[in-house]
This record gives sequence, structure tokens and C-alpha cells, in this order.
Amino acid sequence: MISPGITCRSEVKVLDCTVRDGGLVNGHRFEDAFVRAVYRTCVAAGVDYMEVGYKNSDKIFALDKYGAWMRCSEDNVRRVIGEEPSDVKLSAMIDAGKSDWRNIQPQERSIFHTLRVAFYAEQVPEAVDMINDAYQKGYAVWANLMAASAVEELELDRSLDIIAKTPASVLVVVDSFGSMFTETVEYLVKKYLRFAKDTGKEVGIHAHNNQQLAFANSIEAIIHGANCVDASIGGLGRGAGNCPMELMLGFLQNPKFRLRPVYAALDEIITPLRKELDWGPSPEYNITGQMNHHPREAIKVRENPELRDRYLEFYDRFAGGE
Amino acid sequence: MISPGITCRSEVKVLDCTVRDGGLVNGHRFEDAFVRAVYRTCVAAGVDYMEVGYKNSDKIFALDKYGAWMRCSEDNVRRVIGEEPSDVKLSAMIDAGKSDWRNIQPQERSIFHTLRVAFYAEQVPEAVDMINDAYQKGYAVWANLMAASAVEELELDRSLDIIAKTPASVLVVVDSFGSMFTETVEYLVKKYLRFAKDTGKEVGIHAHNNQQLAFANSIEAIIHGANCVDASIGGLGRGAGNCPMELMLGFLQNPKFRLRPVYAALDEIITPLRKELDWGPSPEYNITGQMNHHPREAIKVRENPELRDRYLEFYDRFAGGE
Repeated sequence: MISPGITCRSEVKVLDCTVRDGGLVNGHRFEDAFVRAVYRTCVAAGVDYMEVGYKNSDKIFALDKYGAWMRCSEDNVRRVIGEEPSDVKLSAMIDAGKSDWRNIQPQERSIFHTLRVAFYAEQVPEAVDMINDAYQKGYAVWANLMAASAVEELELDRSLDIIAKTPASVLVVVDSFGSMFTETVEYLVKKYLRFAKDTGKEVGIHAHNNQQLAFANSIEAIIHGANCVDASIGGLGRGAGNCPMELMLGFLQNPKFRLRPVYAALDEIITPLRKELDWGPSPEYNITGQMNHHPREAIKVRENPELRDRYLEFYDRFAGGE
Repeated sequence: MISPGITCRSEVKVLDCTVRDGGLVNGHRFEDAFVRAVYRTCVAAGVDYMEVGYKNSDKIFALDKYGAWMRCSEDNVRRVIGEEPSDVKLSAMIDAGKSDWRNIQPQERSIFHTLRVAFYAEQVPEAVDMINDAYQKGYAVWANLMAASAVEELELDRSLDIIAKTPASVLVVVDSFGSMFTETVEYLVKKYLRFAKDTGKEVGIHAHNNQQLAFANSIEAIIHGANCVDASIGGLGRGAGNCPMELMLGFLQNPKFRLRPVYAALDEIITPLRKELDWGPSPEYNITGQMNHHPREAIKVRENPELRDRYLEFYDRFAGGE
């Protein structure tokens, strides 16, 4: 039988977002040992990038309410993983409207290689400033236009046209609501590539698993030309989670990737975490995903053991009963 | 943004395999109330077919070891659901090598509309006899060539060539090991369609969720022309389970399908079952799926609470360590 994985495309780069997107599940309160274990897993597995968290504002995300990985101070990151140099490039995400990005220090004094600018379509003007600022400071910059499934076609095209002119090196197709089917992903990747190609940019994919399609959609994006893919160990990430790293590395077949450290990390740090935190596909996320809604209502229900797993009630709330 | 589901393809028929494939998880020992609830769900949801179980041999599957849904006697099926006529067509699966198929009564005296003949490539000669026999008795017949991912190209082509000449009305692409990627599914659906088209047959898809691709692969099959799709409530089925019905009906967008009864069934019969039985995607199934192995070793491990969720150990057993 045919084996589509018999070849590999070595241009494909993998970004681990376990701590960054996973931080949205626990208020970014990971122990140092957890973050260090993720880092060592990335090193051992040959993963290209590790996103350590956000560089967002202390004023908006109070120190007593959000853990260290919401701000990712240089000191914290160096303390936890900085003494172990490797080929893994570190990235942090900065949110439009929520980051004191002007205060971020130049790259030459930073442990971070890449900053990923996350923004909604209506925040494009600030995003452009953020991208330019980060680039001038010496960082590689990715542009993550969030919730693309909820942006009207014309607005999306205009946003991409503007972002394509910035020095961002990657345009990421972001399925914040986990609502995209593979056909949507194909359509968007091709669109993003049209905007990206003339300026030498790459296209990336950040999938969510609401419909159990995160892995499939990430594969689809790669097939159609995306060269940057986000994944997380055990799929850890907000709500239904992200594309599982263990599946993605198994698919990519690039001998530079090693699966064994990822399975080791599942045992050591992810299985224990499942006793404390809830993430991953479940019918509530099917429902918000298929209706193209933000998963926040599903998250709220699943955080409450009294309300979790009452699917009909949740369906009726969203679909308005029958 | 684009909505690929804005149209629907009304030719697509859905077969519920909750009880049949789910029976492989619990030795086919479902209570009558469970089977009746699945039937009523299929009726209310507008599902086209319900596969009640197997019609396999008492001699091979002893009465004291396997439940009623391994044999699906007419009496049993009539007792449980026979008094409630509906548009749902009932089917049973018969396994080559494991069924006393010659003793099955003619369709005019049966509650079953369809028999699905399941066979491995090396069982094609018996499968042809089974298909002919069932057809002559008046049943609609589907041909389920199992474990297609493990059949060599030449053998697959010869098998399909022979089966295409039988009166089976549907050729099903069966991903027994959950090892197929969407590209594999596209390739196989197109191949099966080439064999099917001249004889007016349809192509079907039976996916497994080892790599969290059952839904994605089923969509892919539909996109490329499969008109018959298997799904099960909550994905109940052997090992990693099947394509979840709640996701599939949400995708199909055909107004004849109704989602609400499926969410009700999840609450009423599936959530309680999860306390007793283990099924659904987990890293052990990633591993057997990606290595194109039968899931039996993963099932064995997951049935034992002492061995379950020890992923590295399982990976090393299959990958031979590093």
C-alpha cells in the first residue's frame, strides 16, 4: 500500500506551543520543572522552536493572578532554561492591546529569537507597529491573525495585504475557534501564500482540536505549502487543545525529529497534568467549533464538574433547542 | 469567511455502527435498552442505516462468552427494536471464516435489509460466495475489504477487480488499523471508484480514530466521491473508535439529519458507558496506527489499568527503543 510519508519535506519547521497555549488552561502557572522538561523535550526531539509564553503587560495581567509565563521576563526564562544552549529557538507571543511591547529590550540582549504578534483583524494598525518595532529590535517576527474563521473575506484580504508589507517573516493561519474543515484550511493557506510569496514570507498553521481536526488541518496546511506548524505535547492548549506533537512528528518523517522524547514527556509531565487540568476534544467543543464560536462558553462549562459532560443542555443553549 | 458546508450532498448515506463496532469493545454484551436507545437515536437523527451487530457463528463465538449482538438472531432483534418500524435500514455484518452464512434466511423473512461482508484480501474467494449468496437471498450487500492499508497494491487491485464483478452495491474503504492519512484515503477512494463506477456501485468509508483522523478521513472520502459513511455515537468502536456521529452529522449539513438526538444519546447512553469501557484516541493507538499495526496490542495494554498510559514503555516495545 502507498505510504505518503515515505518522503519528508525538510523545510517544515515545528513550533512547540505547549507552555504558551497550555498557559491559557492554567493561568500560566506552570512550575519551573514543567517548563524545563518541555524545553529539554524540544531539544531532544529536534523541535525547531519553543514558545515559552507571552510577553504581556503586568498592568493587564496582574502578578498575583497570572503565572510567570504570561510575561516571560528574561530573568525567569534564563533561570529555567537559559543555561542550556541548544538549537531550539525561543519565541514569545505578544498580544495586540495587551502587551507593553515598546518596553521589550533589543534582541541582542534577549534570550528570545522570535516574537509572534497575535492580533484580531481590527487590531491590524497596532499589529503593524508591533511587527515593525520587534523587527527593528532584531527579532524574527511572525504575524498571527487570530480567529480568521470569523473575519469577512474583504477584511481578511485587506488585513493580509497590509501585513504582507511588514517585515514579518511568517503569516500564520490561526483557527482560534477550531471551526475550520480541511477545505477551509486549503483555501486559507493558498490565500495566505498568495500574499506571502512576493515578499519571501512563509505561511504557518495554528490549529485547535474542537472537531478532532487539529492534526488533519495541520497536515492539510503542510500539503498546500505551509512550512511552519504549531504543535503541543499531548495537544495541551486552550479548550480542545492544539495539534498533538506526538502525532505531528510521526507524520513528518523527517529523521531530524525524534518521537521517543515526546512519549517520555507524555508520561512524565502530561499524564500527571491531566489529573489537574481539563483540555482536549469533547462534545462541548464540537458544538462551539461547528458553530464558529469562541470556545469560552465551553471552557466555562468544562471547568465546572457540575456542568461538564451535559451535552444536550449545552447543545440546546447554543442551538436554541428544537 | 468561506463556509464549505453551505451546501450538502444529499446522496451521502450514514451508517451507524455504534452497536456493531462497539461490540468489539465489550464482547457484544450490550443491554437491550442500550441497543433500543441507539435505534431510536438513529430514527430521530435521520440516520440511514443501523448496523445491529454480527451474524457470526455460534460455534466460533460461544454463547457464554459473547453477547447476543455477535449473532443478531431475528428473534433478538425483533424483540428489541422490531416493533418500531421506521425508515432506518438494519444491517448486520458477516465475517468471512467466522459466519455460518449459508444458514442465513432469505431477506423476505428477515428484519435485515443489508448484509455487509467483511473479509481480508486472502478471503476474497469466500467473500465472493458470501456476497452472491446474500444477494440471491434478497439482501442488499456491501463489501468491506478489511485492513486495506496492509494489502499490497497488486493484491488490492486484483481483489477489487474480483469484488467489482459481484452484485455487492457498495465497496467500502476500511481503515482497520487507523493508519491512513487523508492522502491515503483520497488515493484509495479514487481507486475504489475506478473499480466501482462501471458496475453502478457506490464507495463507502469506515475509519478508525487511532491518529485522531477518523472524522477528517471520512470527510476526505466524501469529498472524493464516497457516498456511504460509517459513524458511531461518541465514536464508540474498537480501540480508538470510529468517526463520531455528532461530528459527521454536523459536517454533512443535510437538513434531514438532526443533531439533537445524538447529543441526547451521548448523555443518556454513552457517558455512562465511559465509566465501564475504554475507547477513543490515546497515544498507544497513535503508535500502532502510525506503524500500520493491528491495534490488538494497544487494546490489551489499555484494558489493564496497570499497563495503560505508560506510553514510553509501549513506544519502546513497538519501535524497539533507541
